[in-house]
Amino acid sequence: MNTEVMEVKKKKLEDNFKDEPQINSKKDTVFKDFKLINVLREDASHKLITVRGLLPTNSGLESPADAVLLLERKAFDLSKLEQLLHMTKTNETLRNDIYSTHDVYSGDPTDGIGADMKATLIHPATEKHIAKYSDHEPFIVNETPLLYSKLTLPYIQQSTFSIQWVYNILEKKSESERIIVEDADPEVGFVMVPDMKWDRQNANTLYMVAIVHKHGIKSIRDLRQEHLPLLENILHKGKTAIKDQYGLSSDKLRVYFHYQPSYYHLHVHFTHVQFEAPGTDVLRAHLLEDVIDNLHMDSEFYCKKTLSYVVRDNDMLYTRFKEEGYFR
Amino acid sequence: MNTEVMEVKKKKLEDNFKDEPQINSKKDTVFKDFKLINVLREDASHKLITVRGLLPTNSGLESPADAVLLLERKAFDLSKLEQLLHMTKTNETLRNDIYSTHDVYSGDPTDGIGADMKATLIHPATEKHIAKYSDHEPFIVNETPLLYSKLTLPYIQQSTFSIQWVYNILEKKSESERIIVEDADPEVGFVMVPDMKWDRQNANTLYMVAIVHKHGIKSIRDLRQEHLPLLENILHKGKTAIKDQYGLSSDKLRVYFHYQPSYYHLHVHFTHVQFEAPGTDVLRAHLLEDVIDNLHMDSEFYCKKTLSYVVRDNDMLYTRFKEEGYFR
Repeated sequence: MNTEVMEVKKKKLEDNFKDEPQINSKKDTVFKDFKLINVLREDASHKLITVRGLLPTNSGLESPADAVLLLERKAFDLSKLEQLLHMTKTNETLRNDIYSTHDVYSGDPTDGIGADMKATLIHPATEKHIAKYSDHEPFIVNETPLLYSKLTLPYIQQSTFSIQWVYNILEKKSESERIIVEDADPEVGFVMVPDMKWDRQNANTLYMVAIVHKHGIKSIRDLRQEHLPLLENILHKGKTAIKDQYGLSSDKLRVYFHYQPSYYHLHVHFTHVQFEAPGTDVLRAHLLEDVIDNLHMDSEFYCKKTLSYVVRDNDMLYTRFKEEGYFR
Repeated sequence: MNTEVMEVKKKKLEDNFKDEPQINSKKDTVFKDFKLINVLREDASHKLITVRGLLPTNSGLESPADAVLLLERKAFDLSKLEQLLHMTKTNETLRNDIYSTHDVYSGDPTDGIGADMKATLIHPATEKHIAKYSDHEPFIVNETPLLYSKLTLPYIQQSTFSIQWVYNILEKKSESERIIVEDADPEVGFVMVPDMKWDRQNANTLYMVAIVHKHGIKSIRDLRQEHLPLLENILHKGKTAIKDQYGLSSDKLRVYFHYQPSYYHLHVHFTHVQFEAPGTDVLRAHLLEDVIDNLHMDSEFYCKKTLSYVVRDNDMLYTRFKEEGYFR
C-alpha cells in the first residue's frame, strides 16, 4: 500500500539518472525478439498494458530471460499533431450526415498490426458543435442547505428538460426487453436496466441503473429515514440480480448516486469496481451504503449536509451561482 | 448535464449504422489537408485530443469548412502485440541495472512525428517483479466500527512499515526546501509539500500533501470534534498558500483524505479538480469539507460510521478479512 514511499524512491532513482550520460541515443530494436508469455495487467482506458515475456540477454550466451514490459501509448504532442494527421491513412467505419468515424493508421495500413488511433469527425461543423466539444471550466460548489433552497431547488423546478423517457421505462413503454430485475411495489419498487454505456458483454465494465417507481424524489437531498426500506430493497435486490445473472459478487460492485444527478428522478448506479466509470469521483458519487448509514444516524442528514460538486461554465446551475455572486 | 439522454440518442445512432453497408473500405487520407486551428479539449491520461480545424469539402468547390476532430489512441490489441513489438524501433531514455525506459516508434523514427509509445523494461525480471506488476483482484470491504477494532486496528498496530520519512519532513531533516507552507503549532500545525507525483510545472495537475505535526492520528477513524481547529486550519491555510503561490482559487481544489491511507499519520491531499489523480474515487477519497461537516454534526461520526474501501488480494488487510471469513 505504501505507494508514496515508493514514489519517493522512484523519484530519487530518476534524479540519479539525470546526471548520467544517455548510454544509447541511436534507434535500437530492443523488442525485435520479444516472446510474449502472458498479460499481467491491462488498462484499456489509459492505453496501457503490462506483459510478461522472454528476451535474449545482452551477452546472448544464456537462454532468454524473463522480462516485465510496461507499454503505454503516448499522449498527443500538439506541436506535431498537424504533421501526424497529414501522414495518416484512414478507413471510414461509420457515416451519418456530417458525422463520421475512422480507423486511423500512423504507419503502413498493410503491415498487419492494425489501426493505432480512431477519429470522430464532424464536418462541416457549426459554432454549436465547437462549443459542445470545447472544454468547459470546472468550479467546485459547496452547496449548503441554504444555497440548495435558494438556488438549486428553484433551478430544478424551473428547468424544462423532460423525464418522460424515464417514465416510459418504468411503464414498460420502452426498453422493457432490457429489464434485468423489477420490483413493482409503488413505494419500495424499482426497475433495473443496463446503462447505455455498457456493451452488455464484458462483466468487468458492468454498468446498471436502478430507477425507483416512486415519483417525486429528486435526488439524495430529498432522502429521509422513511426511504430506508426503498434504499435497502434496491441495494439487496439489485446486488442479488447481478450476482444471479452475471456472477458478480457484491464485493465487486460500486453502488452509488450522483449529486448533482443528470436527471431529477431518483436512480442508483451499479458499476464494476474495476471499471473507472465517469462520475465515480468523490465530488460526484455518493455510495448507497453511506447514504443508508447516514440516514440511520440522522433522518435529517441530507437536509443538513453541505454537498460539494463540480459545475461547468456552460451549466445553467453555474450561471445561477455566478449571478448570486457565489464565485469570486 | 443530461448526458444519459445523450447516450440514448448516440446509441440509437449507432444502432442505425449497424444495418448500413460500409461506404468505404479502402484506405483513405481524410486528414491530409487538415489545418489545425486550436485545441478544444485535451485528455493526456486517456490519450485523447479534440481540435478545431479546417478541411476541404467533398465537392472541393467551396473553401475549406470548419471541422471538429476527436482523435484518440487505441488500446493495445493483444492478438497483434507481439507483432507490433517486433516491428518497433526504440530509443533508450534511462538505464539503471535491470530497469530501463525507452521511447518506442511504431512507424519510421525519422519521420519527424516522434515516438508514439513509451516502455519500461525490467530484464532479467524475478518472480517478485512479476507478482508486483500483476493485476490483483479487488474486493470492496464495508468496514463497520466492530470490524475496524477487531481487524483493521490490530493490523495497523502490528504493521512494521516505518514512517520515519514523514517525521524527517516534519522535522526538516529532508525536503525542507520543498515546503510550500508551514504552521509550526504542535496542535493545529502542518507542513505542506508537493506530492512526488506532481511535476511542479503544470498547475492543471497540481498535487500537494499537507502532513499534520501532531503524532498519533492514524486516519479519519480517529477524528473527533476536538480536531476541528486542526482540520479548519489545514483547509484555510492550505488553500490560501496554493492561491498565493499558484494562482489557483479554492473552487479549483479537491481536498481530501484517503481511507485506507497509504501511511498511518494524518495527511490531506490537495489536487486540481481537473486532474484525475489516482485515489479520487468515492471508494477511497473523503473530502475534508465533508469530514469537517460530519464532525460538526456528530463528534462520534467516524467511530460510528461504516467505511467502504477496496482491498486487493496482495494486501495484508485483505488477508486479515479473508481469514476471518469476511469474503464468501
